[in-house]
Amino acid sequence: MSIPEWREDILTGRRVLISPDRAERPIQEPGLCPFCEGTEEATPPEVYADRKPNTQPNGPGWRVRVIPNRYAAVRLDIVAPNLVDPAIGIAEVVLECPEHQTLFHHLSVDQIERVLRAWRERIRFWREDGRLGFVQVFKNQGVDAGASLEHCHSQVIGLPDVPSQVLREISKATVGGKCGFCDWLKQGRLEERIVARSERFTVVCPDAPRFPAETWILPNVHESGFEFTADESLHDLATHLLATLQRLTRAFGHPDYNLILKSAPFQGAEAYHWRLEILPRLVTTAGWEWGTGVLINTCFPETAAQRLRESTNPKI
Amino acid sequence: MSIPEWREDILTGRRVLISPDRAERPIQEPGLCPFCEGTEEATPPEVYADRKPNTQPNGPGWRVRVIPNRYAAVRLDIVAPNLVDPAIGIAEVVLECPEHQTLFHHLSVDQIERVLRAWRERIRFWREDGRLGFVQVFKNQGVDAGASLEHCHSQVIGLPDVPSQVLREISKATVGGKCGFCDWLKQGRLEERIVARSERFTVVCPDAPRFPAETWILPNVHESGFEFTADESLHDLATHLLATLQRLTRAFGHPDYNLILKSAPFQGAEAYHWRLEILPRLVTTAGWEWGTGVLINTCFPETAAQRLRESTNPKI
Repeated sequence: MSIPEWREDILTGRRVLISPDRAERPIQEPGLCPFCEGTEEATPPEVYADRKPNTQPNGPGWRVRVIPNRYAAVRLDIVAPNLVDPAIGIAEVVLECPEHQTLFHHLSVDQIERVLRAWRERIRFWREDGRLGFVQVFKNQGVDAGASLEHCHSQVIGLPDVPSQVLREISKATVGGKCGFCDWLKQGRLEERIVARSERFTVVCPDAPRFPAETWILPNVHESGFEFTADESLHDLATHLLATLQRLTRAFGHPDYNLILKSAPFQGAEAYHWRLEILPRLVTTAGWEWGTGVLINTCFPETAAQRLRESTNPKI
Repeated sequence: MSIPEWREDILTGRRVLISPDRAERPIQEPGLCPFCEGTEEATPPEVYADRKPNTQPNGPGWRVRVIPNRYAAVRLDIVAPNLVDPAIGIAEVVLECPEHQTLFHHLSVDQIERVLRAWRERIRFWREDGRLGFVQVFKNQGVDAGASLEHCHSQVIGLPDVPSQVLREISKATVGGKCGFCDWLKQGRLEERIVARSERFTVVCPDAPRFPAETWILPNVHESGFEFTADESLHDLATHLLATLQRLTRAFGHPDYNLILKSAPFQGAEAYHWRLEILPRLVTTAGWEWGTGVLINTCFPETAAQRLRESTNPKI
């Protein structure tokens, strides 16, 4: 194992995490899935599991299971006194279903609710642990979205410090200690970009989407961190998430996608408003984007919202 | 045609270019290449050409040919008085060779020199034109790097204003009106990351590379914009570029790559130092990167430089 490190480029302002062990992670091999029920001995011991009654840890019988990432980009156990900037942190994998399912949007609403609960519990765990300041939960659905193994899974990566881009976003969204999203959700001009709305949540295409049909799900009432979400909201969120993914799949030709949970860091961001981002990977970033930081999208958000709304869904 | 627009998200600080016409651009069809010599009537009229003697514009006989991009993300001819923020600018395509060659690093040094000259001439042209403030030249080599057509080509996109990420980088690299790169190039700690060096140019793996084997080529003597490069430097630059791409291909398994010319905007950045970036697309950006802005690379720059150096090249 080699020790992961942060490297900084003061001339470009860039801070990059370098982790040679990530290059060792396995790619999908036909018929061999380390994430399926029954192969628990092939993974590190579980740190969380939603289990059927009377089943044993690290054996079969789980519904959702969380394990440390064997090919972690960051680690808590680094001992390297001479290293300037070791990459401290945690990385976990959320196994989203016991059977070999490869499409998240083919899971049931109840199963997706269990996944969301696992996300919430892991954030709660690391908040209480006290060693981390920031946890990012995300999901890569499909090869175009960066998934290297096909069995449905999401990831949890935590760091002691908040990344600078996240800090910058939070400071823009919470000017004067006030939540910008609470106001934004009430704006009349949002109407044409709303995909669905319930008592608890709004599903909306954002002002400046990075990808065609980029869609956000936000709680209507202010909540800074996803770990504060009440049990009774999780089912509603799962319903919206699944319905939106089904609409997306139907209206935009089955794209791969990322799910990104934008949630407040553990301290000093009470005015931030969490959201779940759906990023359909319908555009490739090329030289222009890497050179300028400017993304080129091919679909206006109001057009995307209309197409998503019109892709009727019997479930919502 | 629909009018491209800038959209801004004040809560995230994001400014995105939305251009529905980009979605209409053709993908590669077998046997049909609009960029080959002899099919000039299928493209818009050329705005620059390096031609054999006694050949006519927009006919065969060219060595390098530049044409307006038919599927431009930005346009100069927008008339839309009611639009808040139309996406003004220019987009051109540089056809890098007359024959159907799909790999840039299989072109000759002389041909690559002609391509670099075309880049320089287009930047010079737009500087003199006066309507633009910033020109980005870039190349997408291969599908993983974002190329939609396979015939060797690069692109020129110009905007009236400088993108904010570019402005931020320039201000970090030119603190107090002084060029940070000139000092950086002289640092002793750079030695282990240098791939090649000549009188005019340094080829080096940067402090915080975003991708394995990311490599930069910089002029040793301060020069802010690529348009100021002297004729006698172009051949040397072409030699370094080709040699580095051959080393990369050999040592890192033929990756797709982007070339990004980081050159000073037309005004107020005389202290900036131009460079040509080679970005091998050996890592996919996934949910983590889109959520946090933190890139995870799997190869330290000193390791990459050593592997590139050891991949011996007879030509340099």
